[in-house]
Amino acid sequence: MPPEMRDGEVALDRDPAETTDAGVVFIGRIRSPWSRGNAPKNIRAAREEMDGATIELDPRFAPALTGLKIGQPILVLYWMHDARRDLVIQAPRHVDAPRGTFALRSPNRPNPVALSAVRITALDLENAVIGIDAIDCFDGTPVVDIKPWLETVDVPPANT
Amino acid sequence: MPPEMRDGEVALDRDPAETTDAGVVFIGRIRSPWSRGNAPKNIRAAREEMDGATIELDPRFAPALTGLKIGQPILVLYWMHDARRDLVIQAPRHVDAPRGTFALRSPNRPNPVALSAVRITALDLENAVIGIDAIDCFDGTPVVDIKPWLETVDVPPANT
Repeated sequence: MPPEMRDGEVALDRDPAETTDAGVVFIGRIRSPWSRGNAPKNIRAAREEMDGATIELDPRFAPALTGLKIGQPILVLYWMHDARRDLVIQAPRHVDAPRGTFALRSPNRPNPVALSAVRITALDLENAVIGIDAIDCFDGTPVVDIKPWLETVDVPPANT
Repeated sequence: MPPEMRDGEVALDRDPAETTDAGVVFIGRIRSPWSRGNAPKNIRAAREEMDGATIELDPRFAPALTGLKIGQPILVLYWMHDARRDLVIQAPRHVDAPRGTFALRSPNRPNPVALSAVRITALDLENAVIGIDAIDCFDGTPVVDIKPWLETVDVPPANT
């Protein structure tokens, strides 16, 4: 059975998921109240509806948290493992006309890496557990990276 | 020969690169003036030293650019394919004391995905080529994703 397509959507002939140029290792999981059906539209909505979330890392990565501080902003990168990877034009319900995948934040993309800018609210270095202010992904979503958020790097230059 | 370690650095017993929980597909390459030896320290330094860079996508992803505009800020995600993936504590030259990988923007990390917030300066939709204002990675770096940068999503909440 071919996958469901909405009007105007375009898929590649060959699913990018069939090609592996590099391998990702899951370094932990996000714990959130969200699952299919009750998840917020985006991180802004999540922030209004929730009281924090947790990142549980594989304990062997505990030393890699050295130097992070409560209150610090971080980028969390996670893998949207249920996403479709073959759509190049998509018609999400909230968008007026079909749009290219790279013009959307949809989880469906050739490499389903999502990211959120959040703040650290708690740190358990021994158990490699990080409290964060909010997240909009499902409970159990695999984590692939954590980086310090830096204004000089993560805000684009003014439009001149 | 074991890989070179600086004082205070800590590596995992087992390289995360040996585990593949998911596969990444390279969707294109970055064209920049940088190679080993002449690369800038970060995107801010790159911006001062260069006159733009180019992203050349695999042409099958051309439709995925529909809706992007010149002047728009985007996030470019790329794969630092020469990075070490086993370091959990690192001592980069510019940092005073060894620090955890997740407290650094070093390319060396379990999943070497880097990202930059840049602006689109040119768009060739037919050939899937994007001009951007600057980038700090080597010429030929593989690209894994492009996303619209959104202030409401990509700036962390105020520290309360």
